[in-house]
Amino acid sequence: MSKPRFITFEGIDGSGKSTQSRRFAEHLQTQGADIILTREPGGSPGAEEIRQLVLTGDPERWSAETEILLFTAARRDHLEKTIQPALAAGKTVICDRFADSTRVYQGATRGDLRMMVDQLHSLMIEREPDLTFIIDMDPAIALERGLARKSGEDRFEDFGLSFQETLRHGFLALAHADPKRCVLIDGNRTPDQIASEIAAYA
Amino acid sequence: MSKPRFITFEGIDGSGKSTQSRRFAEHLQTQGADIILTREPGGSPGAEEIRQLVLTGDPERWSAETEILLFTAARRDHLEKTIQPALAAGKTVICDRFADSTRVYQGATRGDLRMMVDQLHSLMIEREPDLTFIIDMDPAIALERGLARKSGEDRFEDFGLSFQETLRHGFLALAHADPKRCVLIDGNRTPDQIASEIAAYA
Ligand SMILES: Nc1ncnc2c1ncn2[C@@H]1O[C@H](COP(=O)(O)OP(=O)(O)OP(=O)(O)O)[C@@H](O)[C@H]1O
Ligand SMILES: Nc1ncnc2c1ncn2[C@@H]1O[C@H](COP(=O)(O)OP(=O)(O)OP(=O)(O)O)[C@@H](O)[C@H]1O
Ligand SMILES: [Mg+2]
Ligand SMILES: [Mg+2]
Repeated sequence: MSKPRFITFEGIDGSGKSTQSRRFAEHLQTQGADIILTREPGGSPGAEEIRQLVLTGDPERWSAETEILLFTAARRDHLEKTIQPALAAGKTVICDRFADSTRVYQGATRGDLRMMVDQLHSLMIEREPDLTFIIDMDPAIALERGLARKSGEDRFEDFGLSFQETLRHGFLALAHADPKRCVLIDGNRTPDQIASEIAAYA
Repeated sequence: MSKPRFITFEGIDGSGKSTQSRRFAEHLQTQGADIILTREPGGSPGAEEIRQLVLTGDPERWSAETEILLFTAARRDHLEKTIQPALAAGKTVICDRFADSTRVYQGATRGDLRMMVDQLHSLMIEREPDLTFIIDMDPAIALERGLARKSGEDRFEDFGLSFQETLRHGFLALAHADPKRCVLIDGNRTPDQIASEIAAYA
């Protein structure tokens, strides 16, 4: 039996993370692997409660720094209660978004907080995924997909295309900085094409 | 006008922190100073909500590490929303417990977490009080006082006298390590005697 892996999916809004993490989980399951599919934000009851605390009430209620602390607390809980026990039980963990999203989103909105995010990560989370798929694509096309699904929480509307461009470059920079862990996936293709490229990492 | 100060009161359970912080605040007020009296845990609406999240539900629900993150988030909120605005407005801030309590209680229950507490503090809180009164006293006498007031949350009952001895030594060690900031106060006296010694720092 191969060593259980911690695998994450990252990328801009609407790039296909949820679609591809589900498909990769299904693919591994058909091969007989023991899988859990989880996601951030959330992923454990405690993390979900912390998230609710952050999301309820006046959006200006928490400073960016306090929010980072609360999200780090949520991630620590997710890691302890969901991810680590699954890995310890020999399961492969597939996670839709993880620390890279915090790095890129936080870095894009408040560049000066990026170092704080990294230091908090080294101190309180430590664990990096064994493998990260970064789905890269044109934000304009991702936006069309998002409109197609008409989801309620459309961050494109909140921040605009140029913000998604900034995020895209943030994810590309991460992929280039850590090529051993990160695999760059071209998201400008059909779900089947992308899934079959990712399936090679089973 | 003298520079507004951030002053904290620390010490074991029942040592008289709340009594003496209130009395010192009253004393400064009679001298015409602009004061706010606050306390931890809590001290701001957000900090109070985070605290409720930690306290509700199964006590085993959060790991010690997640709890430290949540309490650091609460302290950051307290600092930003209550302490710093008051200092900026020229007020003296008197706070009943602050970071030293976390250092000592956490160090007493899980020695290996003390370094994590310190690193989180340097990264996310930074601010130290200008002056800290550490009320030192015999835990057995503090216990009798606690029984006299018959409060619901009696930590002596939970952990016992020897735990309070450990805390006492933790506070003494802090006082010795930072004599510029910390003033050791003998709590084995009447409230009036203690208050008049502290009043000299007005
Ligand atoms: N390769 C693709 N081609 C066309 N449409 C796609 C493709 N992949 C996903 N979609 C569709 O695009 C939308 C966004 O996909 P998905 O929810 O998987 O993205 P996401 O990265 O998880 O988005 P979010 O960041 O909002 O969670 C969905 O409606 C999905 O069905
Ligand atoms: N110097 C003193 N002599 C006798 N009793 C005192 C003295 N100071 C305080 N008390 C009484 O002892 C009890 C504990 O005092 P207080 O609440 O001020 O302590 P505390 O350090 O804030 O306790 P806690 O850690 O539980 O918050 C109260 O009933 C208070 O009235
Ligand atoms: Mg998704
Ligand atoms: Mg008190």
